[in-house]
Amino acid sequence: MIVTLLTDFGTADYFVGALKGAVLASNPEAQVVDITHDVTPYDVEAGAFTLRAAFETFPEGTVHVAVVDPGVGSARRAIAVEGAGHFFVGPDNGIFSHVYERARTHRVYQLTNEKFFRERVSATFHGRDIFAPVAGALSRGVRVEELGPEVFDYVRLPSAAVERAGEGRLVGAVIHVDRFGNLVTNITREDLSEGLVERGASLRIAGRAVRRFRRFFAEDDEDLGEPFAVWGSAGLLEVAVFRDSAARVLGARRGDKVEVNL
Amino acid sequence: MIVTLLTDFGTADYFVGALKGAVLASNPEAQVVDITHDVTPYDVEAGAFTLRAAFETFPEGTVHVAVVDPGVGSARRAIAVEGAGHFFVGPDNGIFSHVYERARTHRVYQLTNEKFFRERVSATFHGRDIFAPVAGALSRGVRVEELGPEVFDYVRLPSAAVERAGEGRLVGAVIHVDRFGNLVTNITREDLSEGLVERGASLRIAGRAVRRFRRFFAEDDEDLGEPFAVWGSAGLLEVAVFRDSAARVLGARRGDKVEVNL
Amino acid sequence: MIVTLLTDFGTADYFVGALKGAVLASNPEAQVVDITHDVTPYDVEAGAFTLRAAFETFPEGTVHVAVVDPGVGSARRAIAVEGAGHFFVGPDNGIFSHVYERARTHRVYQLTNEKFFRERVSATFHGRDIFAPVAGALSRGVRVEELGPEVFDYVRLPSAAVERAGEGRLVGAVIHVDRFGNLVTNITREDLSEGLVERGASLRIAGRAVRRFRRFFAEDDEDLGEPFAVWGSAGLLEVAVFRDSAARVLGARRGDKVEVNL
Repeated sequence: MIVTLLTDFGTADYFVGALKGAVLASNPEAQVVDITHDVTPYDVEAGAFTLRAAFETFPEGTVHVAVVDPGVGSARRAIAVEGAGHFFVGPDNGIFSHVYERARTHRVYQLTNEKFFRERVSATFHGRDIFAPVAGALSRGVRVEELGPEVFDYVRLPSAAVERAGEGRLVGAVIHVDRFGNLVTNITREDLSEGLVERGASLRIAGRAVRRFRRFFAEDDEDLGEPFAVWGSAGLLEVAVFRDSAARVLGARRGDKVEVNL
Repeated sequence: MIVTLLTDFGTADYFVGALKGAVLASNPEAQVVDITHDVTPYDVEAGAFTLRAAFETFPEGTVHVAVVDPGVGSARRAIAVEGAGHFFVGPDNGIFSHVYERARTHRVYQLTNEKFFRERVSATFHGRDIFAPVAGALSRGVRVEELGPEVFDYVRLPSAAVERAGEGRLVGAVIHVDRFGNLVTNITREDLSEGLVERGASLRIAGRAVRRFRRFFAEDDEDLGEPFAVWGSAGLLEVAVFRDSAARVLGARRGDKVEVNL
Repeated sequence: MIVTLLTDFGTADYFVGALKGAVLASNPEAQVVDITHDVTPYDVEAGAFTLRAAFETFPEGTVHVAVVDPGVGSARRAIAVEGAGHFFVGPDNGIFSHVYERARTHRVYQLTNEKFFRERVSATFHGRDIFAPVAGALSRGVRVEELGPEVFDYVRLPSAAVERAGEGRLVGAVIHVDRFGNLVTNITREDLSEGLVERGASLRIAGRAVRRFRRFFAEDDEDLGEPFAVWGSAGLLEVAVFRDSAARVLGARRGDKVEVNL
């Protein structure tokens, strides 16, 4: 079984190695796969976005460990999530917010059953001592219900959900600004049928209207400098400017609301 | 089965994770192995060199995915290559040029059979949507002939091939300059028997003669500043200067011709 | 079986890929796991520390390849170590010093049996040509005694061992300074029972007494600027200053002696 790892540990220290060892000590048959260890330190939203964009390509049954955990050592809970046919293990700080959106029926369990932890749990390295061994356990077939009680008041990032604000009106958010300055929103094809787009929907972001929808990034060269919306490779609606930074042109940033009027 | 990955994606984004997921969704039994994701962006020649220096150490049957793909979204073809007992999947932009040199009998197939692609193919992320699932298919035993028609006019980098320019004369090229300034050529031991080297062959590079051949980098300390040829660890003839940069001393760079007169 | 890799190769070149290929050519069933490739180049002590902090989380039987090898090409020996239920393969330059400390009964073998090497051994890339294939061999069940003769005069870093200097006195060393300036020592819980700590032991480092022991890093906010000792996540005694660099405050660095008087 496959266990993926997504952290903000960087790759220079021993942390990633210790994490992998702890997964494999729990299930020597697991295949451990790095998603990334270069999430901006403590940036839970960035980790949540990267996980969302990567996890759905993996086969069902994959266990994803996500550790961007500024609250380690505090009272934040440790959780496991079952949703969309995958499992997720990490801190209850919103890092799985997009999973909750993608998987209508998901279940969240607090990790309380110490039987699945490492023998000695440190105050600062729950990745190695709790999340990795629990992920190993799930990957060898332990049922998620055995890990602890189901919980319902888990943390969701406010920007994760798309709101339907009345008939034909949708409010999403910018959840990622890529290195080209493209604004990646949380709006999916299912939220916004392409047909409607073609029937003259309009979009507002950072107080400005975006009226143009393109099929590809480089569809044509006209209207340089004019922002347009396009389906990006993560399957999400993006706002871009041809050969320029939409973030700069629009003065927009992560967390900004995106309104769509159909 | 083993599937290796070589890209210019960097490791901070979701791209590498999505690529791995797509391989594993196609073949959950595959072992996914990173060669590197730090090829200089869009540098096809650098990717081709790194692949050449790494792939032959893997066991036969390994599938290598190489994605350095400035032309994604354009009309460049997607291909799979069978050669030297290995398989290769990526864009037809010359990234497999050294494979064609190393494997006298190789076959190249255009990827047209959409049965092996991801369900929805994006315009910008063929790594995830075409190359990775096809690599997964090859790794689970799909025959390369099933992927599409054989093609013969595939792209080769001009610098990849060593030319025999008449009796006792060979023209190769610098294909890589390493971080120490050593000039790595495409000339192999098979091209240039060591016996001949010892019988007074001479080598010209960037308009200058190199007359000295050494067995090791640090064979002796005499003649500091004098360029010499040596067999490097990639099995290729390199031109170096002891404790200095041969690229700087000779004013040479990648792509420069290297003439050998035996 | 699992084969881990720890090197100072960086991830941009072909070296890591070639290493992995050589392990898998020797044992295609091995699972290759990166610990890190970002050890500071040639820093054997840093590699030894990272290996120590990571290896014990892996399951028994794991084979660890460690290549931080400034002496490649010189007369330094190549060795394999059996200890603590794990195997280790690399140069005899002290990189396994902490393994020797952790595993009371360990055995060290010089790699002389060329049957387990790559066919052609280069002068500069023993990682690919000797260590990786030997690790592959161990992972497929080759007995460590088959690799060459047992040796007893292997290299140990002077700072690795904790000395008992008479009744109630212990001399350890700083073996790592982390990015926050915390001083990680080689003193373990087994060396220094917590009970004794609570009975007023004192600690000297860089000519200065540290009298405070804390259970956690952020136990309380009093005494800012005052160094304290704490058990770090690697299971080792660390000296820290709350929200400051202990290395700076104490003028201490790696290699400094740490005296404990119970």
